[in-house]
Amino acid sequence: MSQSNENISSVDIQTTIIQTGNGDHTAVTFAQETDIQNGDHEPNDVPESEVPEPDSDDDPQSSTNHGTAARKNFQKKRGHRRVTNAGEVTYKKIVSSQLMNSIQMGLHHAIGRQANKPEEVVLIQDFYESDTIFFPANGSEKTPAHKYTDFKFKVHSPDGLRHFRNLYDIKQDEYLISLCNEPMIELSNPGASGSIFYLSKDGMYFVKTVQQKEAVFLQQLLPNYYMNLKQKPNTLLPKFSGLYKYKCNTKNIRIIVMHNVFPSDIEIHQKYDLKGSTYKRKASDKEKAKKDPTYKDLDFLDQHPEGLTLDSKRFNELMSQIKSDCRVLESYSIMDYSLLLGIHNVDKAKRKPDKKTMRSVSVTCKSTNNPDKKDNNRSSIYHSHPNILEVDQSTKWEKETQVPEGSIPGYNAAGDRVLIFIAIIDILQSYRIKKKLEHTFKSLMTDGDTVSVHHPQFYRERFIHFMESSVFKKIPLRVIRSPTQRKKSMKRKK
Amino acid sequence: MSQSNENISSVDIQTTIIQTGNGDHTAVTFAQETDIQNGDHEPNDVPESEVPEPDSDDDPQSSTNHGTAARKNFQKKRGHRRVTNAGEVTYKKIVSSQLMNSIQMGLHHAIGRQANKPEEVVLIQDFYESDTIFFPANGSEKTPAHKYTDFKFKVHSPDGLRHFRNLYDIKQDEYLISLCNEPMIELSNPGASGSIFYLSKDGMYFVKTVQQKEAVFLQQLLPNYYMNLKQKPNTLLPKFSGLYKYKCNTKNIRIIVMHNVFPSDIEIHQKYDLKGSTYKRKASDKEKAKKDPTYKDLDFLDQHPEGLTLDSKRFNELMSQIKSDCRVLESYSIMDYSLLLGIHNVDKAKRKPDKKTMRSVSVTCKSTNNPDKKDNNRSSIYHSHPNILEVDQSTKWEKETQVPEGSIPGYNAAGDRVLIFIAIIDILQSYRIKKKLEHTFKSLMTDGDTVSVHHPQFYRERFIHFMESSVFKKIPLRVIRSPTQRKKSMKRKK
Repeated sequence: MSQSNENISSVDIQTTIIQTGNGDHTAVTFAQETDIQNGDHEPNDVPESEVPEPDSDDDPQSSTNHGTAARKNFQKKRGHRRVTNAGEVTYKKIVSSQLMNSIQMGLHHAIGRQANKPEEVVLIQDFYESDTIFFPANGSEKTPAHKYTDFKFKVHSPDGLRHFRNLYDIKQDEYLISLCNEPMIELSNPGASGSIFYLSKDGMYFVKTVQQKEAVFLQQLLPNYYMNLKQKPNTLLPKFSGLYKYKCNTKNIRIIVMHNVFPSDIEIHQKYDLKGSTYKRKASDKEKAKKDPTYKDLDFLDQHPEGLTLDSKRFNELMSQIKSDCRVLESYSIMDYSLLLGIHNVDKAKRKPDKKTMRSVSVTCKSTNNPDKKDNNRSSIYHSHPNILEVDQSTKWEKETQVPEGSIPGYNAAGDRVLIFIAIIDILQSYRIKKKLEHTFKSLMTDGDTVSVHHPQFYRERFIHFMESSVFKKIPLRVIRSPTQRKKSMKRKK
Repeated sequence: MSQSNENISSVDIQTTIIQTGNGDHTAVTFAQETDIQNGDHEPNDVPESEVPEPDSDDDPQSSTNHGTAARKNFQKKRGHRRVTNAGEVTYKKIVSSQLMNSIQMGLHHAIGRQANKPEEVVLIQDFYESDTIFFPANGSEKTPAHKYTDFKFKVHSPDGLRHFRNLYDIKQDEYLISLCNEPMIELSNPGASGSIFYLSKDGMYFVKTVQQKEAVFLQQLLPNYYMNLKQKPNTLLPKFSGLYKYKCNTKNIRIIVMHNVFPSDIEIHQKYDLKGSTYKRKASDKEKAKKDPTYKDLDFLDQHPEGLTLDSKRFNELMSQIKSDCRVLESYSIMDYSLLLGIHNVDKAKRKPDKKTMRSVSVTCKSTNNPDKKDNNRSSIYHSHPNILEVDQSTKWEKETQVPEGSIPGYNAAGDRVLIFIAIIDILQSYRIKKKLEHTFKSLMTDGDTVSVHHPQFYRERFIHFMESSVFKKIPLRVIRSPTQRKKSMKRKK
């Protein structure tokens, strides 16, 4: 059970960069090395649904050879991700730098090509369309020459996902620049899923490998994603902006592009992955030893026994949004999703400015109307909570401090002003959970409702209950102390 | 072929009212009189798709008995609609007054019940949901007693279509009042389809019987209808606001509710049903003899050889909208739709005010900001062209005269100011057309592209071409004469 709780948070951005992505590795052809057991061997032109890709994520040992040698290698192989003895990362035996460079080539061509295509009304069927571009190593009339193996790059739902990017206020040329102008940063922590994570150099987007079933599932989700986004523009669900397939010889690698929930220029002091369960929901000692650990439900209850306080209108709107998003997820029997929660402590940042090497912009100086281009980008990504931001009723500190868009201002129990960044993540793994359910049927029976993997309706209800009773609280009637009062109080304590 | 061209325009509102709808007729049980040939016999609880309802609309004679007596009866039976010797209209042998009263009972209960239900995010699957209410003659805890046979009333997509009504700015209580507070008006002209048409007393909505396949087709259309409406709010497609099924014994009668395109308080001087074809597209002498005939393509070319003139921005937006709507229709292989076009001649109305018994409001006096409740209703229904209304670039007569919402101001060739009311109608009959196609394969071969029933892409292209080259024209560079100048010119001619 605890395995599922060790999934990497898809926003674990403060990890060691293990590869510069400069594309120094030359391509190696693996045509003879297909590994059917790992789902690497997918014949051309066979409909995806007919080619199930065995899921080796649940039990990493299942995809390694048996015996002592294999066990020793366990840390270096998870899912399709391997780390060679030379420290080189591969995915389905494709060297990561080759994968990244090919993806960037594919993205560059696909986004550029689409720029000339007029925008028509997007209909449901457009979510199931795709475009494939062939990139021979020697180049072609439309594609550049490159030093890797020939590959194909498939763009799923080109018009549908361009429409999504429009809804997210992403300019196509800025999307292209973010993803293609500089090598991406590869994150070192693959988590239990064995995915490869890249972060665009500007910190705006994640590019992540997903399994075939996750890609198919995302495609099925898109129409309702649209419905939800149109009716609830403040949705907390992940902002998917691209779904692609890189195909090299017989290897198919699906990737998704999604927004980074956390800003790269504001320090996140605490980070949580919350599911509403308390069963084994505690960060491991190994996780805690990290520079920027992701804590879990029990840690939150321990560190914030009084929760985070929001003014009542904002609290109500946030809960309404969480309920609506969870209803969409339940309609697809999705479970095991998490609320990713990052806390920037405004007062702590003031007390200890520039503590970290990362650009730790003081929130009090940051203007939402900053005409700086980068901030404009940011604001368009973090446009997800405009209403939440507009409804401030209570103490108006955030009006003075110009809260960055997409964050929710509140207080912690100590009275510190905090900015909260949230999203509901890990929504594509539904089918894997079903498998786990079978394995853990017994534990479900004995552990009752504290197990994090459960019936979708139950999961949703417990999730919502936890958020509205333990994580977020309405501002109490007593007046929150002003920063000046707090300073005085702190002095008195000293 | 000409048969298909004689379909009633669904807005043919100036017809004789043949039944007051006061519900004076008592119910008759037809359980023993099922007519399998006419698709009347549908067993309970069998999925709709398994119960094809033979289509007797194409050839009215097919549903009558052969022989002289039957032939004499031809005018009195079309599709499922019959007129008895006593002049009583029935549909599937249900007396029209019983049908109308039962529908109003069903609507009253369904809309009222839904008023208490909170609005959640509508997802694709909600378009396929339904609610059924049973109305026993003796009444029940929730339903009133009535003098008719027990019946069931099924509401298709209650949440989905409520969401549509919200998008159309229809208040639920006003919808209820429009449809249920007074008996509806039954229109006497059933057209080739043999449907029963009711018009709500306030002229806002049409209630129309449809065949099973049309109802199923509408349900399939709804998700993309939503997509189109959200992306192109000025859509000209019919505004469907309800889909219901009345079930009495073994008879299933499906009905749709849709908006009336034409205002009830502004005189429509000319009315056209345009398909972009010229083959036999001429109103019959019988049609022309009517008080308010619906003319066709050839009549339009004859009466408006120079078309109707719009300012260029409005022209471009209208064409863009027609193209977008037609693209949606083509994606469903829909053909044989029409542009319903109504012309109110502002100058003619001024010259001959109050000519008709109907309330002929002078457009120059009508304010779009009229606080009168009825006009508010009107404006919400006719909100479909707000952009079109906002873009006036050319001569600004409409600014002075306060154009009613939903109408498009322009000029005819004589220089008269006109208000144009348009919609794309008859979009649910797609499957019937396929049948016709087989029957008319030969005529297609010989008549080439002038036949109105053709391949969907061809149909769309020809339709659009006709609208943008023959029906609507961009305002020419020469300055349109002002009304004063025109008056002078007219005097001179005299």
